[in-house]
This record gives sequence, structure tokens and C-alpha cells, in this order.
Amino acid sequence: MHAPIVEGIRRELGEEVTVRVATLDEPDHGLTDEVLAETDVMTWWGHAAHDSVSDAIVEKVHARVLDGMGIVVLHSGHYSKIFRRLMGTTCSLIWRSDPGGERELVWTVSPSHPIAAGVPQPIVIPHQEMYGEFFDIPQPDELVFISSFAGGEVFRGGCCFTRGAGRVFYFSPGDQEYPVYHQAAVQRVIANAVAWCGGVSRPIGPVAGRHGNRARDWYLG
Amino acid sequence: MHAPIVEGIRRELGEEVTVRVATLDEPDHGLTDEVLAETDVMTWWGHAAHDSVSDAIVEKVHARVLDGMGIVVLHSGHYSKIFRRLMGTTCSLIWRSDPGGERELVWTVSPSHPIAAGVPQPIVIPHQEMYGEFFDIPQPDELVFISSFAGGEVFRGGCCFTRGAGRVFYFSPGDQEYPVYHQAAVQRVIANAVAWCGGVSRPIGPVAGRHGNRARDWYLG
Amino acid sequence: MHAPIVEGIRRELGEEVTVRVATLDEPDHGLTDEVLAETDVMTWWGHAAHDSVSDAIVEKVHARVLDGMGIVVLHSGHYSKIFRRLMGTTCSLIWRSDPGGERELVWTVSPSHPIAAGVPQPIVIPHQEMYGEFFDIPQPDELVFISSFAGGEVFRGGCCFTRGAGRVFYFSPGDQEYPVYHQAAVQRVIANAVAWCGGVSRPIGPVAGRHGNRARDWYLG
Amino acid sequence: MHAPIVEGIRRELGEEVTVRVATLDEPDHGLTDEVLAETDVMTWWGHAAHDSVSDAIVEKVHARVLDGMGIVVLHSGHYSKIFRRLMGTTCSLIWRSDPGGERELVWTVSPSHPIAAGVPQPIVIPHQEMYGEFFDIPQPDELVFISSFAGGEVFRGGCCFTRGAGRVFYFSPGDQEYPVYHQAAVQRVIANAVAWCGGVSRPIGPVAGRHGNRARDWYLG
Repeated sequence: MHAPIVEGIRRELGEEVTVRVATLDEPDHGLTDEVLAETDVMTWWGHAAHDSVSDAIVEKVHARVLDGMGIVVLHSGHYSKIFRRLMGTTCSLIWRSDPGGERELVWTVSPSHPIAAGVPQPIVIPHQEMYGEFFDIPQPDELVFISSFAGGEVFRGGCCFTRGAGRVFYFSPGDQEYPVYHQAAVQRVIANAVAWCGGVSRPIGPVAGRHGNRARDWYLG
Repeated sequence: MHAPIVEGIRRELGEEVTVRVATLDEPDHGLTDEVLAETDVMTWWGHAAHDSVSDAIVEKVHARVLDGMGIVVLHSGHYSKIFRRLMGTTCSLIWRSDPGGERELVWTVSPSHPIAAGVPQPIVIPHQEMYGEFFDIPQPDELVFISSFAGGEVFRGGCCFTRGAGRVFYFSPGDQEYPVYHQAAVQRVIANAVAWCGGVSRPIGPVAGRHGNRARDWYLG
Repeated sequence: MHAPIVEGIRRELGEEVTVRVATLDEPDHGLTDEVLAETDVMTWWGHAAHDSVSDAIVEKVHARVLDGMGIVVLHSGHYSKIFRRLMGTTCSLIWRSDPGGERELVWTVSPSHPIAAGVPQPIVIPHQEMYGEFFDIPQPDELVFISSFAGGEVFRGGCCFTRGAGRVFYFSPGDQEYPVYHQAAVQRVIANAVAWCGGVSRPIGPVAGRHGNRARDWYLG
Repeated sequence: MHAPIVEGIRRELGEEVTVRVATLDEPDHGLTDEVLAETDVMTWWGHAAHDSVSDAIVEKVHARVLDGMGIVVLHSGHYSKIFRRLMGTTCSLIWRSDPGGERELVWTVSPSHPIAAGVPQPIVIPHQEMYGEFFDIPQPDELVFISSFAGGEVFRGGCCFTRGAGRVFYFSPGDQEYPVYHQAAVQRVIANAVAWCGGVSRPIGPVAGRHGNRARDWYLG
């Protein structure tokens, strides 16, 4: 599953990034404190096994996102604990998995957004599971892609959010049944999203220090 | 053209509203200063003749919107002078007018929004001209509807904006060729939009008076 | 604490509403399933005792908000479990409680929003605890009020959010030390917010039914 | 006026950028077609002489922004023809120019935004003209800075917008009377804003080509 995602990120971002893979069955799902501290951007894919993810690890990932780590949530990751925790909503949707799937078209509605750079209008995905509205998420800060399906449904499939100091991008294309992650345009979006999520500022005084009791005129120091 | 729109507004909003019709060939297009001053919400439909609309009248309508009048812009009104003036963008899109049109599905993506009240999910419009992305508008303050077409295109067809003290709603369904405005669900959306655009507050001190030079502590008066 | 809030809601909204009070020390904090099911809009104030609120009740309130119940979160309620659950962020801020407090000015930045109806520009609150930025919340769907304090800090003190089918309004003025909730303008904002949060549509097919597996052409039924 | 702005951009962005200055009294205000075509990001400062700017040049700049050129509008540029054209609103505000000015504090409310990178919380500007709310602009896509003034007013002084394929940043600090543009933190913001406005994607198929009549299945080409 993760091989084509990794390959796409490496091809598009090259020397700029180091990619590492963590899986559910590793201790701490591979997400130790050290790994989290060193990670600038995480991609998250999951399916069926969301409930097997440790609540304690989810809390740690959540805290890291608020502290500035980016996270790119992919496809059925919409139902992951971490995405629902970040959104505060059910993240439910309508779906259909007919044999062979159906054609999805991914339309850019924010053409100058960095995540849309070099992305064809539309991306044509021949075989895909259908995800449709109503998608129960907060209104995105920026909506980059909207998908349509052969069955007529639509889906806000490319959504930007900022939570705390961290950036979140949800991207719906991708499935364990079809070779979606092998399409160059899909890989390109994921790589762009990783770059965008990692493009946050490192402010003077982190967000973590931006709360608490302050004496009058504290800033005149 | 305007008969079914008027009928729908009257049926849904009843005694609450007085509806009046203004057309291009009237003096001032029927939009005299008196009419504008008395109007809480205007609907705007136009096609092909946008250039025949007087710039001076457009400026007056623009000023009234900023001062609190609502405006519901319908279908090909996306290319009207007033809508482009309010948006600050080209408001261009892709389109297709095949004989007989094609099926449009209108999906609610903000189900608790007052403009979506009582609207089926989706609205099925059997024959319609295609409008597709990229639709060159500012990101809407609230996105209520997204359409898909039989040809696979998508369109942000129900968009809320606030400009000055006025509310703007753009709604894409509707055409001079097909009986779209006779569908009860479409009429319902338009009536809801009229009510929403008219639901602005009447603040103490209008926006028109919310600028200018102010002495220190002016608000302690 | 709650007396002036109740009084203000009753004065502004009159016969339209029935107000009921629930407190921490009641069984289920007074928020039984029956009470929640009958409630259209809830106001939430808390201080210091946030940790004493039952997680199970918070989950029920959260589910009701996503299902369409409005919630107006007041002042130190920013740190309540329910608000943090809805926001997905820490909701932390900077603060100062000097003896006697300091002057807060509440400025309307969205003058046509229904929550700003009849609200003076600015509201002058003579004595108040300081709340300042950075306020760790998602970017509001609509920002209605910004406060300044005598000490120079600013705060996004009036923020609208939609979560699921429910509307959320956070309003920062109000404290247990000062008679803020006795000011008519503050009462007016809270009453307006209750009305706005209760103004959601009741869509055909609730959000709760807007997810799940759908056969091709299900909507043609 | 422009010397410290240029100096700050050069210091922060270095070799990455070529800076050129254009002034009102040059032919075409220095904004010939060639210059516009070569410009990725423009900064715009103006005061008192807004009406002397040619409408034809404003239309050209407007078209270039929609086509992807960034624009950073500074201080009294809020009343420029180009900014009002892009916003679609009056861009009016309240203001005060007492002798010696008054202290302005610039607070970051979006600490991970690239425009806030390396910016102290708050920026302290000792002497400044007051700009206050209501500022008649559309709700920004992202609000980065809010200012407070010694007199108690607040102002949304750092606002991001996308219009067409172009990015717009409005930044209020700066005046012809006070050495605001000589403060390193203010220079830093302007340089960050130039970088952000220039960071748009160059999509396959420009926005300019993203409209017009399309045959069925045109994208399968």
C-alpha cells in the first residue's frame, strides 16, 4: 500500500525529504516519542482497523499536530481516530463499493493553490470506490479539489485545515483495491500536500508558549 | 422567465414579502432610486444582454448591496456586471449547451444552512445546461451546494458571500431553455435565499456611518 | 451567575423560548437524555471545575450538537471539555486577572451579522479579566467581534462555527467577578446568539441519516 | 518612502528576488505591459493621490493579479482603486491622525502562517496613525494579524485573499509620517508577504484558459 506513496513523495520532493514508514503492528505503531519529535509531516492511511489504534498514541499525534507537525490524511483515513479528533465531527459520508468501482474525476477549484501545482484538470481515476456528500467535516479553510463519480455523487475530496500550529490536508482518492496511488497525478498531489503541510512558519515563541498568565505590559520586556 | 420565480417566492414566503418585477427595457431598467431604497432583497437574472445594462445603475445597485440590500444572482447572472463588480473576479467558468441539455444533480454540503431547509438530497434536474469548474470567484464565505452533471463536471452552484452590510447568494440552476424554475425544490432554494439575504441585522449606526475621522475616546460620548 | 443570562434571553426573545437551568451538581449535571433531546440551544458557562464534568455527558452533548443543537459557549467555557471536543484544538489563550480588572472594548467586525443586531460599536465593559491572543481555535467560519483591553491585548471574542448540523458561538465577555452579564448590550449579544444557533434548517433527511452505503442511482427512488 | 521597503525585501529574500520601483509620475506610472508581464509580486502604497491613478492601468494590474501576479497592499493603499476593485467593497475604515500618533500593537492570530514567520508577538510600533473597525472588506480567506491602538480601537491589519489565480495581502502598518517601514519586524512581514504572494502554483493550463465552451468528454482527449 505505502510503496507507491513513498515512491511518489521521493520522486517529487527528492533530497528535501527523508521518508520513513510506520505500521499498525509495530510497538506504538512505530510512532514513538522520538519518531514523532523528528517528523515534520505525517501521511495517514487506515482502513477497517481504526479501532485498533491506541488512544494514547492518537493523543500524542494530536498534540504534535497542534504543535506544528503536518498531517496528510488519505482516503479511508477520514474515519481514523486522529482525523475525527482534529475535526471534532463524525467525518461520516456516503459510499459505494461496486465490483470494479466507478470512474472518479478530481476537479481543481483553487488552481493557484500550491497543492494543485502541476495537477491536470481533471484527474481521471478509472476505477474507484465512491465517497459522497454529506461529508461531515467543518467547512475547510481552503477547498482545493471536488470529485464527481460516474454514479453522479460529488465529494469535497481535497480540503485544507489549520489546527493549532499544524496543517492538515485530507485527500480522498486512493483505495486498497485499485492502483490509484500509482497514478502520477495522485502522487503529485500527495507530494504537494506534504510540502504544503511542512511549510508552516516556526514562529518566535512556539504556540505551546503562547498561553498562560501575563502581567500588564509583559511585551515591553 | 420571472413568473415561476415570483410564484415560488410568493408560495414559500407568503405575506412576509412584496414581490415586484423590473426588466431591462424599462427606464433605469426599472431600478429607480425609490425602488432601490424600498428593496430589501433583489434577484438578478440575465443572459446575453449583460452589456446593455447601464453602468450607472450597476453602481447604484452595488452601493445598495454594500448598504445592506441582499441580492440573489441566478444562473447566467454569474456574468452580469453587478456580480463581477461584487466579486472582483472574472466569474468565468466552463459550459456546454448540448441539445436537450444533460442531467444536473444539486448536492447539499451544508445541511443545516437555512438556504438548504427542506431541500431534497440531491435535487435532480433532468435537463440543464452544464456549468463547470474552474469558476473564477473568491472562495465563498459558505458553500451550500455543489452540482454534478451527466458529463462528469462539477460546479460550486450555491455560494454565500457578505459584501459590506449586504448578503449575496449565487445559485446556478436555471435556464431559459428548460423548466428548471418550475421545480418546487429549486423554487424552495430561491425563496430560502431571499429570506437569508434579507436576514441581516440593522445595526445601531449603519455601515455607511462606520468610517471617517474619530477623536480619541469618541466612543465614550 | 446564570440569573442575568436567563433574564437577558427572556427579555430579548420573550415568548419564543423556554429557558431552563442545569448545574454541575445535579445528577447528569441536569443534562439527561430527555433534557438534551428537548433542547434546541444550550449556553455553557464553566470555570475551574471543567474536569468535574462527566466525559459521558460531554459525549452526549457533543453528539447532540452534531445532530443540530446549538451551543453558546461563554467566557471561561473556552476551556470546557465540550468546546475543546468541538474545536479539536487546545483552546488555550493568554490571560490576566489584576484586581479590579481592566477595560474591555468589544468591536463588531461583521456589522450585518444577526448576532450583531442592535449592538453598540463598541461595547464598553468597564471591568474585566483580560483574554488575549494567541487563542488556539480553528479559524472561525465567521468572526463577529474582536475585543481590545486596556493593557493592549486583542482577542477574537465572538466566533461562529458550524459543526455537523449544529451551530456553535463562542463569546468571551463575562466573568464571575464583574457584573458583565448585567450589561444590556452583552445580554443582547447572548440572546442574538441563541437565536442564531437555533436558526438551523431542519433538512429533509437529518445529518444522522446522511451517511452509509448507497446503491447506484439510490436517489432516483 | 519606498527605500526601507526595498531594503527589507532585499535583506530578507536576497538573491531570490529582483526589486524594481515604479512611481505615479512615470509614464503609465511605470507599469507598462512589459513590466507587468515580468512582475511576480507587486507592492502598492499610495496616499491622497489615489484618484490620479489611471483607470486603464488599474484594469491591467487587476487582470494581472487574476492571472497570477501577487500584490501586497500597504497602509493607505486600502483606498487605492486596485484594492477596491479586487475587494468589491468600499474598503472604508475609521482613522485618527493625532500629532505624534499613538502606539500600535500588531498581534499574530495565525502563528503558523508563513507571513508570521519570525515575527515577534506582538510587534510594538511606537507612533502610528490609527486605523479602526469597521473595515469594509470581504471576510479574509486567512486573518494573520490584528492590531490594537492606544486609543482602544482594533483593526484587521494583516489579511490574505485569493482572487483568480493571484494572491493579495493587505498590511496596515506604515505611514509617511513615522519610521514604521524602518522597523525590522515590519520589513520582515512585508518580505514574508512578498514570498507568500509569489508562492502560487503555475497550474497546467492557466486560469485564463479555464473557461469557455467544452464538448462532452473533452477531458478524455
